[in-house]
Amino acid sequence: MQNIYIIGIGLIGGSMALDIKQSNPEVTIYGIDSNESHLDEAIQLGIVENKATIADLKNADIVIVSVPVDASLKIINDVLDAISENTLVIEVGSTKEAICDVTRKHSRRRNLLATHPIAGTEFSGPSAAIKGLFLGKTNIICEVEETAFKLQEIALKLFADLGMRIRYMNPKAHDKHIAYVSHLSHISSFMLGKTVIEKEKNERDIFDMAGSGFESTVRLAKSSPAMWTPIFKQNKDNVIETLEEYIANLEVFKKYLEADDYKAIYSEMENTNHIKTILKGIV
Amino acid sequence: MQNIYIIGIGLIGGSMALDIKQSNPEVTIYGIDSNESHLDEAIQLGIVENKATIADLKNADIVIVSVPVDASLKIINDVLDAISENTLVIEVGSTKEAICDVTRKHSRRRNLLATHPIAGTEFSGPSAAIKGLFLGKTNIICEVEETAFKLQEIALKLFADLGMRIRYMNPKAHDKHIAYVSHLSHISSFMLGKTVIEKEKNERDIFDMAGSGFESTVRLAKSSPAMWTPIFKQNKDNVIETLEEYIANLEVFKKYLEADDYKAIYSEMENTNHIKTILKGIV
Repeated sequence: MQNIYIIGIGLIGGSMALDIKQSNPEVTIYGIDSNESHLDEAIQLGIVENKATIADLKNADIVIVSVPVDASLKIINDVLDAISENTLVIEVGSTKEAICDVTRKHSRRRNLLATHPIAGTEFSGPSAAIKGLFLGKTNIICEVEETAFKLQEIALKLFADLGMRIRYMNPKAHDKHIAYVSHLSHISSFMLGKTVIEKEKNERDIFDMAGSGFESTVRLAKSSPAMWTPIFKQNKDNVIETLEEYIANLEVFKKYLEADDYKAIYSEMENTNHIKTILKGIV
Repeated sequence: MQNIYIIGIGLIGGSMALDIKQSNPEVTIYGIDSNESHLDEAIQLGIVENKATIADLKNADIVIVSVPVDASLKIINDVLDAISENTLVIEVGSTKEAICDVTRKHSRRRNLLATHPIAGTEFSGPSAAIKGLFLGKTNIICEVEETAFKLQEIALKLFADLGMRIRYMNPKAHDKHIAYVSHLSHISSFMLGKTVIEKEKNERDIFDMAGSGFESTVRLAKSSPAMWTPIFKQNKDNVIETLEEYIANLEVFKKYLEADDYKAIYSEMENTNHIKTILKGIV
C-alpha cells in the first residue's frame, strides 16, 4: 500500500489518517474534502499531505470515505467509478443499510467494504482528529461476503493496526441495534440540553448548579447537526421506534411519581442498575 | 475544632471525612451509620476513626449529616436535640426545601447549615469515598441567615479547605433549578438504560456496539436507588414538571422525524449546541 485517499477529513477520517501514517510512514496520504478550508487545515495539522480530487482515485490503493452519511450515498458510486481494479474502498458511516443498498449493483461492489467503526467524540472537523481513537474499539463490518477476499485481508490488517475488534453483522441488524445504543442516546442528550436551556434563561444558574453528572448526560448534545441530521433521516424508522419506547418509559416513570408509588420507582432504578454489569469493559 | 461526627459514611460524608482529616490531622473523626457493616468498612478504609451514636453528639464540634434525604428528615431534629450549644451541624442533601421546613421551629435551628455540595459520582457507600471530590465544585447554601454567624464562619472555612465555591440560594429556587440540571438527568439516563436493556435481551450486542457516547449518557443509571428514590419523592412537583417538558420536547423531535422535516431537526440540534458555551468550565 502506497497511496491512501481520505474523503472527508473530520474526526473519523482524520484520526484514521494519523494512525495509518504513524504505522506506515512510507505511505502518502491524500485528502479530498468539499470544504476547502478543512483541507487546508488538515494539511496544516499534518493529517494529510496533499489535496486531491475524485479523478485522482485511479491511483489509490485505499480510499476511506468518511463524510456525513447523506454525502456518502451521493458520492459512493462516483468513487467506485473512479477507482482502479485493485483499490479498496472503506466506507465508515454510522448507518449501513442505505449504503449497502445503493451500491448493490455497482460493478465494483467487490472493491467496497461497508464498516462502522464505533469510536468518536462530540467534536468534529479536522481539529477533532486524534491519534489512537480506535484503540480497543469495535468495528462493525456489514455484508463482508460482498467484498473481494484479498481486499478484506488488506482491510483487516489495517483495522488490526488501528487496534480495533471486528464484529460482522447484516446492515438491517446493524441499523436496528445502533438506533438503541447510539442514535437514541444522542436524541435523549440533545432534548435534555434543550429542556434545560429553555427553562434556564439565566445561564449562570445552569453553570453554577450543573455538576459532572449533568455534563456527562448532556455531552452528546455538543455533536454536529450536519453529521447527525442525515443519520436520523437514514435510520428514521428504527429511531422513531426507539424514541417511542423511550417516551413510554418516561411516561411510566412520571405516572409512578404522580401516584406516589416510590416502591415502583425504586424497582425501575434497581433493575436498570444492571447496566453496570453490561457496560463493564466499555471505555 | 476537635471532634467531627459524620452521620452516613458514603460518597459525600466519606469524601468530606478524608479531606478534613488531611487538612486537619489533629481532629478525631467519628462515624455514625445505621448500617453496621458500612461503619466497619469505613474504619477499615481509614475514613473514620471511631464508631459513635447520636447520644455522643454532645461532644461534637461539627456534625455532618450525609444520609439519604428521607433519613435526613427523620433524624435531623434528633441531631439538633443531641448537640451542644456551639456545635455546627452541616446537612448536605440534594433537596433543600423539606429539610429547611422540618427544622424551622427547632430551638437549635441556628446550629444548622443547610447545604448542597454539587459533587458526586455514580457510586455509593464508604468505598466510593475519594479525596479531592469537592475541589472546584459548587456548594449551595440555603437560608444562610438562619444559621448563627460564628458557625457560618466555621463552615465557610471548612468549605474553603475543601476547595468549594459558595452560592447562596433560597430552598425553593434550589429545588426548582436542581430538578433541571440534576434530577432530570438521572431520570433520562435511567430510562435510556431501561429502554436499551428491555430491547437488547442479547447483552453481547449492547456491549459490542455501545461506544463511549452511550456510556456517558447512561452513566447516571448506575446510581443508587436508595439515594435517589427519596430525592424524587421530596422534589416530586418540580421533577414532574421537568419530565413533562422533556417528554414534550422528545415528542416534537419525533413529530419532525415522522414529517421528514430535517430542517427542523437540524435547527433543534444546532440551537442546543449552545450548551457547549454554557458548560465550558464544568468538570
